[in-house]
Amino acid sequence: MTIAHHHRPIAFTSVELTDRLWAPRQQVVRERTVPFLYGQMVKIGAIEALDVTRPPGPLAFPYRRNNTSTSVMYWDSDIAKWIETASYTLASHRDPKLDALIDEVVAKIAEAQEPDGYFNSFFQRREPARKWSNLRDWHELYCLGHMIEAAVAHHRATGKRILLDVVLRQVDLVTRLFGPAAGQKRGYCGHPEIELALIKLYRLTGDRRHLELASYFVDERGSQPHYFDIEARARGADPADYWFGTYEYNQSHMPVRQQDRVVGHAVRAMYLYCAMADLAAEKQDESLLEACRRLWADLTGKRLYVTGGLGPSASNEGFTTDYDLPNETAYAETCAAVGLVFWGHRMALLEGDGRYGDAMEQALYNGALSGLSLDGERYFYENPLASRGDHHRWIWHRCPCCPPNIARLVASLGGYMYSHAPGELAVHLYAESAARLDVDGVPVTVHQVTQYPWDGAVALGIDPQAPAEFTLCLRLPGWCRAPAIAVNGQSVSLADVAARGYARLQRKWQAGDRVTLDLPMPVERLYAHPGIRADQGRVALRRGPVVYCVEAVDAAAPPDLLALPRGEALSVRHEADLLGGVATLSGTALALEQAGDALYRTEPQRRVPVPFRAVPYHSWDHRAPGEMVVWLLEA
Amino acid sequence: MTIAHHHRPIAFTSVELTDRLWAPRQQVVRERTVPFLYGQMVKIGAIEALDVTRPPGPLAFPYRRNNTSTSVMYWDSDIAKWIETASYTLASHRDPKLDALIDEVVAKIAEAQEPDGYFNSFFQRREPARKWSNLRDWHELYCLGHMIEAAVAHHRATGKRILLDVVLRQVDLVTRLFGPAAGQKRGYCGHPEIELALIKLYRLTGDRRHLELASYFVDERGSQPHYFDIEARARGADPADYWFGTYEYNQSHMPVRQQDRVVGHAVRAMYLYCAMADLAAEKQDESLLEACRRLWADLTGKRLYVTGGLGPSASNEGFTTDYDLPNETAYAETCAAVGLVFWGHRMALLEGDGRYGDAMEQALYNGALSGLSLDGERYFYENPLASRGDHHRWIWHRCPCCPPNIARLVASLGGYMYSHAPGELAVHLYAESAARLDVDGVPVTVHQVTQYPWDGAVALGIDPQAPAEFTLCLRLPGWCRAPAIAVNGQSVSLADVAARGYARLQRKWQAGDRVTLDLPMPVERLYAHPGIRADQGRVALRRGPVVYCVEAVDAAAPPDLLALPRGEALSVRHEADLLGGVATLSGTALALEQAGDALYRTEPQRRVPVPFRAVPYHSWDHRAPGEMVVWLLEA
Repeated sequence: MTIAHHHRPIAFTSVELTDRLWAPRQQVVRERTVPFLYGQMVKIGAIEALDVTRPPGPLAFPYRRNNTSTSVMYWDSDIAKWIETASYTLASHRDPKLDALIDEVVAKIAEAQEPDGYFNSFFQRREPARKWSNLRDWHELYCLGHMIEAAVAHHRATGKRILLDVVLRQVDLVTRLFGPAAGQKRGYCGHPEIELALIKLYRLTGDRRHLELASYFVDERGSQPHYFDIEARARGADPADYWFGTYEYNQSHMPVRQQDRVVGHAVRAMYLYCAMADLAAEKQDESLLEACRRLWADLTGKRLYVTGGLGPSASNEGFTTDYDLPNETAYAETCAAVGLVFWGHRMALLEGDGRYGDAMEQALYNGALSGLSLDGERYFYENPLASRGDHHRWIWHRCPCCPPNIARLVASLGGYMYSHAPGELAVHLYAESAARLDVDGVPVTVHQVTQYPWDGAVALGIDPQAPAEFTLCLRLPGWCRAPAIAVNGQSVSLADVAARGYARLQRKWQAGDRVTLDLPMPVERLYAHPGIRADQGRVALRRGPVVYCVEAVDAAAPPDLLALPRGEALSVRHEADLLGGVATLSGTALALEQAGDALYRTEPQRRVPVPFRAVPYHSWDHRAPGEMVVWLLEA
Repeated sequence: MTIAHHHRPIAFTSVELTDRLWAPRQQVVRERTVPFLYGQMVKIGAIEALDVTRPPGPLAFPYRRNNTSTSVMYWDSDIAKWIETASYTLASHRDPKLDALIDEVVAKIAEAQEPDGYFNSFFQRREPARKWSNLRDWHELYCLGHMIEAAVAHHRATGKRILLDVVLRQVDLVTRLFGPAAGQKRGYCGHPEIELALIKLYRLTGDRRHLELASYFVDERGSQPHYFDIEARARGADPADYWFGTYEYNQSHMPVRQQDRVVGHAVRAMYLYCAMADLAAEKQDESLLEACRRLWADLTGKRLYVTGGLGPSASNEGFTTDYDLPNETAYAETCAAVGLVFWGHRMALLEGDGRYGDAMEQALYNGALSGLSLDGERYFYENPLASRGDHHRWIWHRCPCCPPNIARLVASLGGYMYSHAPGELAVHLYAESAARLDVDGVPVTVHQVTQYPWDGAVALGIDPQAPAEFTLCLRLPGWCRAPAIAVNGQSVSLADVAARGYARLQRKWQAGDRVTLDLPMPVERLYAHPGIRADQGRVALRRGPVVYCVEAVDAAAPPDLLALPRGEALSVRHEADLLGGVATLSGTALALEQAGDALYRTEPQRRVPVPFRAVPYHSWDHRAPGEMVVWLLEA
């Protein structure tokens, strides 16, 4: 597992989840979220807007200041993410009605596509004269990127080509329009996305031009003279009037290989870094890998919430300064945590280092999953780590990027669990499931029997079609202090096989082989780096990969007034009827209680013992509204 | 001391401070701040702008969005506060050059005044057609208010009438223009100030019309139909476009007698409440007093920093929600703390309750005084309670309201120390000084010999010109747990004489009487109400009226990482050579120290003993720049 010998992801179609956490979530995505999102897109007019021959009515969401942009510009991307999500669900569950509905939407897109390959319902209908005139703000290539991802998913799920052909035609157009040759635009999108999409496309088509176009967009980013300056002047605008002030906002402040700090809009950053990792893998580009390593170290060492959330600030939907991770005002957009899952997955495959999987898992089980309600029809855009009781999932948003983003991740989660390389099969995530994989051409079935993430015992059945020599790489989560492994009942010395967060079990595997992985998951108290002021004197609770929170409904005193004594033992209970079935933590905290109303006094607050229960952060805000905290005071 | 029998303030000219804190500050205000501020006003063109016949050049500070306002509109008020400050200094220190300079500026103002009495250099020069057209935003009456305060101070200090006559003419004009009669405007200023100024004027002139105009402005505020709506429509504007969204911003959201929460712009609030208290006193208005009491309880019970700073938010320069008192981002404008001194002083005189003097003293010694550098030439606009090392006093500001505001308070501080009523003489503040007062017509000299605020022993010499029966009311600071009093060496039982924060010593006083007041001031730890999240698990240090902070230069570890063990003893030392001579606190804290760079870990931080020194908050940012905290973690 080096850059010379990196792992490949598996198809999302290879894994069937049967666990008690993800499988029910996949079911609600399929049965509730997909129809719900379609209904919303009809309601806001996004589907109708695909008919570019209809005269546009008033804008659903008007241009913001200075005519810079409107969220209607991104509707195509939301439709694309819906197609992508719906396609993932089709792969595992045939649904002729949904199949037909996707075809209907795809047909509208194909119908709208112009002869030269152009498709963007917003610009075709409303601003035909302004195509490609503002790559910095207007998301045309971003929308195409999502449509490419949708087309790849749709093709992989159904074998159909109609959407794939649409995007191939548009990619051809973009390949003609953008590049270093005379008459071409030396541009790239203000919102990275098309780059990673083109690499996905390349992995389907094998067409090297798709890889090279992605590479061009990534390499060109941040070079001087700056394309967004040139483009602004061409529009008659002053580049200095850029709303966000700095090109850090879209990570074009310098060439990507020089970047060493995660800056700007967090989702843009994650999508860009995904493409950099993909290109590092596909093109054996050590300089891009180095940049990814630096950026990863910066993110995970200084700018990541304990929930795997990222981007603390609403003002740029992104990063601020080192250790600036306020809890109540955390922006921590769902899409950004989803993006970290994407990036962590790519880094894990590229580097074979368990810490990438650790962060992927951290974001997945906490700051990403929190974005989706248990019923699949409510969504967090922002994922704060504390609330006064006024933050709730909403039904829709003027910028509805998050619902289909978490939905497509959940629906395709199987694709993140395994990877393969010559002579190697790696397991990155654990959940009860059956997978049909392939190692060096030999089909291998892998079963996982486990209650993960509520229990750390994982029984793996490794059944190659024929006996085969390969290394089974099992991720040893960084949160686990004492993992243990046995193969066919025989204990394995981890000292001999563990390296960089993976146990490497090399042998001739044959049908019937059984591996048991035991990952003890006591309740852990987490302490933040002292640089994070918001968490000073506070403690977070984690068990396995799951970060906990305390909601008002689970304590007799406001959660933000609970101080947890350092020695207090916490008991774990699996509550099958709570929040879809979760492990909860219970104990007694000391509630700060003040006699009288004085704002300041010379006596410390009294501390009154109060029993409390903590629930997984990802499942908060499903009961009576009230305060919530992740970081408890420590007594 | 009831509303029926309230105390009157004494003239600022009655007291000469000779202490080691205020007297040197008064000296730098006289010798440095007054010339410095004049120089700055020349430099920015504010003095030149008094010549309204000169064509205006480009605006020094342009209109902000939508042409709403420019800080140049308020230049007259800054000139006025300079005249007021300079006049205060003249009263105690004859300075013919300064006297002449004030006369020169006053002459320009008199020269500019229009025949009907109008004077406002901005509108006369730049916007003559827009006089009185936007009381909500444009501060015309506010500027006049400050000019009235200047005129009163100038007259009291020098006996000269020229500025007084100018403002009397303009007050006549305003009296004709504003009121309930047909053809009059039913308006009032968006920024309260003229109301309290008119009452000051009334106390000088005895002209009841001045009191009634103040009363009209206060009574009319917030009534419906709302004047600012009417006025906006008259300008062709939509009232709904009001930049601040709510009339809470300028406390005109409802009639003042109904108000029970401190809201909006903090300085405006303080100035309005001052006028309400003055009117309650002058007009025996119980309903206004009740409103003042409610607002006071709201401020001091839920919305006041431990430094006496107020108004946490930059966005409205004002109040937000209960217990929302963040430290690092505290706006806590110097002017607002100065305003609290003004209001607390009025409430103390009106109610004779020591808690008003407590808050006045809290703001005075901490959040107000911090605004002025030791050399008198640097100023804080914002007074945060924590800094990462990037917050410093500045030389000037586009809205230079704070420097002359804290300067005029310092220069006239003697006026806040005493008050009198029939048969009563009250001491509200302690500082080494000599005062010439008057009780029931009998001149009384009061000397204070004390090292206050660094030591709590106060020796008072009470020397009436002739023996006189009256009650000497000595404020017993709320921070003092065990005050002791002796009269002529004889101990007085406080149980017999103390009520509502004052010791009432009734006797026939005669020359040579000596009162000793002992106010033991151990170091106190303050704990905030648990609702103040920013201070949970933290402790502030106070000794006497002085709140302390820790600066980076005084600790071997960053101050924000210091945790103070609950039992840790702190030693007090008077350091004559430090920061102009202050008492410092020293002890050992535990610095949070983390091995390695991990953002989150399961082990608590190591705690390493680190000696530290705390200095008065008001004197911070005079040495090497670095972090500062008021609220230390408590271990």
